[in-house]
Amino acid sequence: MTPVRAVIYGVGTMGAGVTRLLLDRGVTVVGGIARSPEKVGRDLGRVAGLGRDLGVTVSGDPGEALDRGADVAVLSVNSYMDDHAEHIEACVVRGINVVTIAEEAFFPWWTSPAATDRLDGLARAHGVSVLGTGHQDALWVGVGAQLLGAVERIDAVRWSTLWNPEGGGPELLAAMRVGESAGARAPVDGEGSGPPSFAVAAVDALAAGLGFGPGRRTTTSEPVLATAPVHCASLGRTLPTGSIIGARDIVRREGDGEPTLTFTMTGRLFAEGEQPGEAWEVDGVPNMRLTNTYDGTHHEQVLAQTAHRIPDVIAAPPGWLRHADLPPLRHRRRL
Amino acid sequence: MTPVRAVIYGVGTMGAGVTRLLLDRGVTVVGGIARSPEKVGRDLGRVAGLGRDLGVTVSGDPGEALDRGADVAVLSVNSYMDDHAEHIEACVVRGINVVTIAEEAFFPWWTSPAATDRLDGLARAHGVSVLGTGHQDALWVGVGAQLLGAVERIDAVRWSTLWNPEGGGPELLAAMRVGESAGARAPVDGEGSGPPSFAVAAVDALAAGLGFGPGRRTTTSEPVLATAPVHCASLGRTLPTGSIIGARDIVRREGDGEPTLTFTMTGRLFAEGEQPGEAWEVDGVPNMRLTNTYDGTHHEQVLAQTAHRIPDVIAAPPGWLRHADLPPLRHRRRL
Repeated sequence: MTPVRAVIYGVGTMGAGVTRLLLDRGVTVVGGIARSPEKVGRDLGRVAGLGRDLGVTVSGDPGEALDRGADVAVLSVNSYMDDHAEHIEACVVRGINVVTIAEEAFFPWWTSPAATDRLDGLARAHGVSVLGTGHQDALWVGVGAQLLGAVERIDAVRWSTLWNPEGGGPELLAAMRVGESAGARAPVDGEGSGPPSFAVAAVDALAAGLGFGPGRRTTTSEPVLATAPVHCASLGRTLPTGSIIGARDIVRREGDGEPTLTFTMTGRLFAEGEQPGEAWEVDGVPNMRLTNTYDGTHHEQVLAQTAHRIPDVIAAPPGWLRHADLPPLRHRRRL
Repeated sequence: MTPVRAVIYGVGTMGAGVTRLLLDRGVTVVGGIARSPEKVGRDLGRVAGLGRDLGVTVSGDPGEALDRGADVAVLSVNSYMDDHAEHIEACVVRGINVVTIAEEAFFPWWTSPAATDRLDGLARAHGVSVLGTGHQDALWVGVGAQLLGAVERIDAVRWSTLWNPEGGGPELLAAMRVGESAGARAPVDGEGSGPPSFAVAAVDALAAGLGFGPGRRTTTSEPVLATAPVHCASLGRTLPTGSIIGARDIVRREGDGEPTLTFTMTGRLFAEGEQPGEAWEVDGVPNMRLTNTYDGTHHEQVLAQTAHRIPDVIAAPPGWLRHADLPPLRHRRRL
């Protein structure tokens, strides 16, 4: 078989990790795309921290890199459709499939319908597919969706994810107000006050997989306060009880005659020994409970999910793919 | 859409439950098949405990019931290929798809290759599909297989299932020696001394989904002894410490350059408050842990998994289907 040819579109932490994983699984990496002047013009192997040259120069011009010809581009450049559409378009008009970890891309039909329809049409016209994947694929949606297949009657689904922003750098911590004192700010209703929570795409994908429409969604965002002193390695100090140590988004979806779906996404500093993971509570017949944890940063599992989806995207019918229409995510030693 | 037409092949506890679930999801049940003289000739709705007539008489002659024409037969008649093949053949030669909860049928290629090849060929020749499903589908294999999709490197997979034989009736308890004192019997190597453990099909299916062959499998079977007095409602007495309260099968699969897969299947009486469920331990990058529990008997989740697979089997290409080639199990309100 001819090896898959891939372009790494965005060479930050995730793009670098994907490069390593793809090479390990037999993919030919033909291009890398970055904006930063410290990366453009250097060998991708060096930029990705592999300690060796790959003979692939990181390009500052997406068109130039994509015109080399590839089966798939792996995008890790931003999170929302408004910023993301131009990058997806650059790939699909050249007949290149797209795998992206942009959070909204996991299920963008109900949050950015016009852009999604347009890109879906472009992808179909060029015979290629687009898939949003990453943490969401198995762990925010897939495992739970499969669990629901073992339930006769669903009355309600509540699920949650817990992650640690510690490794995300000072900008992320500042955006989440980590280290500030809580002050008097009340919880903020996220609807209409900014881009949709990343949690919305997961709720929408689960709902769509159950055959539901968008329904009525409400998003609540609130700071998470320390209930005991917590050390923050990134800030180099211990945050006292009451300080902000993260943020929590709760998305609740209701529809007539449909079980309520409630997804809670919490990013906060961890106490000693805590691990990131997910928890599912299904009320119904039977009641089901599921929890999973993983160690390390959350990068490894996101990288694995992203890389393992490449054959599914290449094999899929053209268009913007829906999670529920795909085969279950699986481990692959070769891509 | 024309409703799916189904024959209930075997009208015991599971067949009765499937009848209820299928009717609830819009399926037209056109036949029921049983051996017992107490069931043959009666209305399926009464035999299945629905409290009403369905206008479908339970037949003692499989051919007669199947000749009414159906899209799918749901089989719950026995566990192993040697007993099961004739029933599957009766369906597929009539152009009827098969969903079966026979445990070996979940992955029979490596335990009964000749029979599987023959039935696979018959199914292809008649343009229909055969699928083994049930507890195994999501909970013994599917959820864990999907979890492995989020793992970069797998070093070892250990997983287990725990169920309570209490509801299985006195024959099952006797077969498991529940209530006997342990005596001096040593653990028994299951290979060659009887039919394969139900756990083997799950290990084989997971291995096949990872792209592995049968590898080297060893099965250990041992009684589970009470470490404290346990009440057995079916036997109507409390079993003292040291008595047999169940059985445990451990299947270990190794292959050169492949992670070791170890599946432990324990059926034993429960202490107060215990629940059935599964637990997964994946050693690798990252390490992953997952546990799930459910309440009630295990019937509801087996029935749900079986019913929800019917559209997948009807839509699938002809032949004996492999779990890894199917879409992920999902909840469905209509079939």
